Amino acid sequence: MNLQLDQDGRLRHFLTVEGLPPALLTQILDTAESFSSVIGKSVKKVPLLRGRTVMNLFFEASTRTRTTFELAAKRLSADVINLDISTSSAVKGESLLDTLWTLEAMQCDMFVVRHRDSGAAHFIARHVRPGVSVINAGDGRHAHPTQAMLDMFTIRQHKGDFAPLVVAIVGDILHSRVARSQIHALNALGVAEVRVIGPRTLLPRDIDDLGARVFYDMRSGLRDVDVVCMLRLQRERMEGALLPSEAEFFRRYGLTEDKLALAKPDAIVMHPGPINRGVEIDSAVADGPRSVILPQVTNGIAVRMAVMSLAMQATGEAA
Amino acid sequence: MNLQLDQDGRLRHFLTVEGLPPALLTQILDTAESFSSVIGKSVKKVPLLRGRTVMNLFFEASTRTRTTFELAAKRLSADVINLDISTSSAVKGESLLDTLWTLEAMQCDMFVVRHRDSGAAHFIARHVRPGVSVINAGDGRHAHPTQAMLDMFTIRQHKGDFAPLVVAIVGDILHSRVARSQIHALNALGVAEVRVIGPRTLLPRDIDDLGARVFYDMRSGLRDVDVVCMLRLQRERMEGALLPSEAEFFRRYGLTEDKLALAKPDAIVMHPGPINRGVEIDSAVADGPRSVILPQVTNGIAVRMAVMSLAMQATGEAA
Amino acid sequence: MNLQLDQDGRLRHFLTVEGLPPALLTQILDTAESFSSVIGKSVKKVPLLRGRTVMNLFFEASTRTRTTFELAAKRLSADVINLDISTSSAVKGESLLDTLWTLEAMQCDMFVVRHRDSGAAHFIARHVRPGVSVINAGDGRHAHPTQAMLDMFTIRQHKGDFAPLVVAIVGDILHSRVARSQIHALNALGVAEVRVIGPRTLLPRDIDDLGARVFYDMRSGLRDVDVVCMLRLQRERMEGALLPSEAEFFRRYGLTEDKLALAKPDAIVMHPGPINRGVEIDSAVADGPRSVILPQVTNGIAVRMAVMSLAMQATGEAA
Repeated sequence: MNLQLDQDGRLRHFLTVEGLPPALLTQILDTAESFSSVIGKSVKKVPLLRGRTVMNLFFEASTRTRTTFELAAKRLSADVINLDISTSSAVKGESLLDTLWTLEAMQCDMFVVRHRDSGAAHFIARHVRPGVSVINAGDGRHAHPTQAMLDMFTIRQHKGDFAPLVVAIVGDILHSRVARSQIHALNALGVAEVRVIGPRTLLPRDIDDLGARVFYDMRSGLRDVDVVCMLRLQRERMEGALLPSEAEFFRRYGLTEDKLALAKPDAIVMHPGPINRGVEIDSAVADGPRSVILPQVTNGIAVRMAVMSLAMQATGEAA
Repeated sequence: MNLQLDQDGRLRHFLTVEGLPPALLTQILDTAESFSSVIGKSVKKVPLLRGRTVMNLFFEASTRTRTTFELAAKRLSADVINLDISTSSAVKGESLLDTLWTLEAMQCDMFVVRHRDSGAAHFIARHVRPGVSVINAGDGRHAHPTQAMLDMFTIRQHKGDFAPLVVAIVGDILHSRVARSQIHALNALGVAEVRVIGPRTLLPRDIDDLGARVFYDMRSGLRDVDVVCMLRLQRERMEGALLPSEAEFFRRYGLTEDKLALAKPDAIVMHPGPINRGVEIDSAVADGPRSVILPQVTNGIAVRMAVMSLAMQATGEAA
Repeated sequence: MNLQLDQDGRLRHFLTVEGLPPALLTQILDTAESFSSVIGKSVKKVPLLRGRTVMNLFFEASTRTRTTFELAAKRLSADVINLDISTSSAVKGESLLDTLWTLEAMQCDMFVVRHRDSGAAHFIARHVRPGVSVINAGDGRHAHPTQAMLDMFTIRQHKGDFAPLVVAIVGDILHSRVARSQIHALNALGVAEVRVIGPRTLLPRDIDDLGARVFYDMRSGLRDVDVVCMLRLQRERMEGALLPSEAEFFRRYGLTEDKLALAKPDAIVMHPGPINRGVEIDSAVADGPRSVILPQVTNGIAVRMAVMSLAMQATGEAA
């Protein structure tokens, strides 16, 4: 049985896009769309999670991601507790479980979990009691499913139908939980082709199994694509000798207007942020008319509201 | 006059269990019971403290305790401000009073105070203006009254009547504010016998005055008790040469199923948390059928809601 | 065009008192007066900013100031996000703008900005989108306009009419954003005379342009004044050899009952806090009958509520 679904097939935890039925992904997008109009208004609140308690359990600091979940929860009228937990807690140590059980006993309804270790959110989801939902806010190299879903939302917003689309993901695929989640989501939603573009050193060995066509040359890879998803280059990779230099990376894989001209004329450019200007993307592109980087952020709130409210619907009745 | 009561004998501050009339302790337990059912629901909020401002004044970091007070206040619909104040502020220095007066002038209604110095909460309570309540969230070795009251609540929940009970408190009594508050509460509520069990080096000299029977041998002390309250062993005491070693402590005073078998068959096991597995308590006991450690956490929210709402009733009219 | 006003002359951002029409300053004071009565009640909330999101963007830590803005926003029923941003972000670097645009894309309605660099709040205000307001919570030596307005509110509360008043500002004028904002506000509201009192080393060179009469001798400067505004002495200035010693500073510029006797019999004493007792002010004066230091704190909440709600009125329609 899928850990993420309840017995009626509804979303209980949101841990990874992998293995979720396409209809459920579409339901998330549709629900997010209904919140999208609320967010633009001056009164942005809906009472769906009133009286519910959401705990942001960040074992790895990420002010930006935490803020989007905090805002999403507050706009659903939930009470939010932020807990920045030292990274020293081992994922599988008993101390983490004791911490979890204690927080659960405070009758919280949802854990939003960020952890540097792959699998942390799954581990936690396997150990919570029936009434509690777990949302993965990024675990190691594994998954960042709300990021992938806000990307899907943004693509649908601009392109409508997924079926005819060719989507390229560019950069450090190997270390990116975002890329993994994107590839799963794009395939589940039925795009025509997913491409990954990057140097050999930054592509995972199992890339063929993921369902993506590999390009080492960016110009070939970008030809006639509808969507370009740039990835953030983690600068610490440079030191690991996986890459020659920032300048060299930018020359080969940085998105410039020149390279973007090879894509379709109405192609959109996405990036999960924060962007490294002049490293993986040129400012002219990031701030240009095809960039939907800031709409992605706005959509991120709506998508997180959708995931949270759907998960609470399922657990609300189970509790 | 009792600093904790207003002129009508109602709870104004909650600083220590010591000296409070038993009827008031029972009132706290009864009020907590009424909140207990609310906490289990999906909408856990009551509007009793709407528009009130609660400030968590933590001079000593304690994420766990702060979170329980923050949740209790939010479930009462109060606005909560968390202030982590450096421990460098001297309790009796003028700077602390200036800080207090400034926060008071922001029209806050309640200070929840945690401090490493015994007497800090009393000091603050003596200096606040009429409309402000002070709740002690732990001061030095002195008191941790909401912890004691959640223990009483948990005992009453499982045992009903206090009168026939024999309760044993085990471990480092000397350094424990929890033990002090428990002994006062148990005696005030009229249990048949309070026992303290621990090595000579970890028992206070004035233990006879507190109203507890002393046992140095755990097996003798646990015989036929109804309730076992384990204390957390502060590991830093080890270095102070008060204790031989963790293994030796566990052998003599750690709660195992073997030792627990000497208590009554329906005895319950409590612990204020976080537990040190294998130091003061064996995992088989902590996770076993007699453990009420996690219900204690849940009850802690209801008890804190009770204390906060009662104190606000008294000061609300005085203000 | 004034960056702070919308096309209808209403307050959009509150960056500095300088250049604002006196009628608008009076409107802020009048609006604050209407909130002042609310703050004293047990239910202190008004729904004016319900559903709005206020972000406290503190590039420089100031728990006290942040708390007043957080309380003001919560009492207006806004959702508040606190972001303590490392001071390493350069004001004019692209990374600050990317951070801002990202936060904006989360659909926040207001930034409360504290920064050690003069001009930071203006820079941010120049770059936000139409629907977003910026409130300056102190930028470098430049301005602290809500502090100045709460001072004006306190003066009006005690003195009624500004026209006949002589107001003295005492201490380290050179490094004080508070003094600059006070001088602008007092002149705009039409007081009879503004005096600045301090040693030559702590007076700015352009002091004559600001519209204040300079006194190096405190006894001459205090003669017959209606209001004494003391400034906090930043102790780190001492090391910079701008001052001989704290004791010497107190002897010459510390406010004692003896010196205060030279002011009018009903003169009031103000201080932005936190006070250095025995450095710039004697405890007998700070705690004495003429001190309005704590009422200033209370008024600070009402004034911040006023500025926030006025700015939201203007941007609410523009958005």
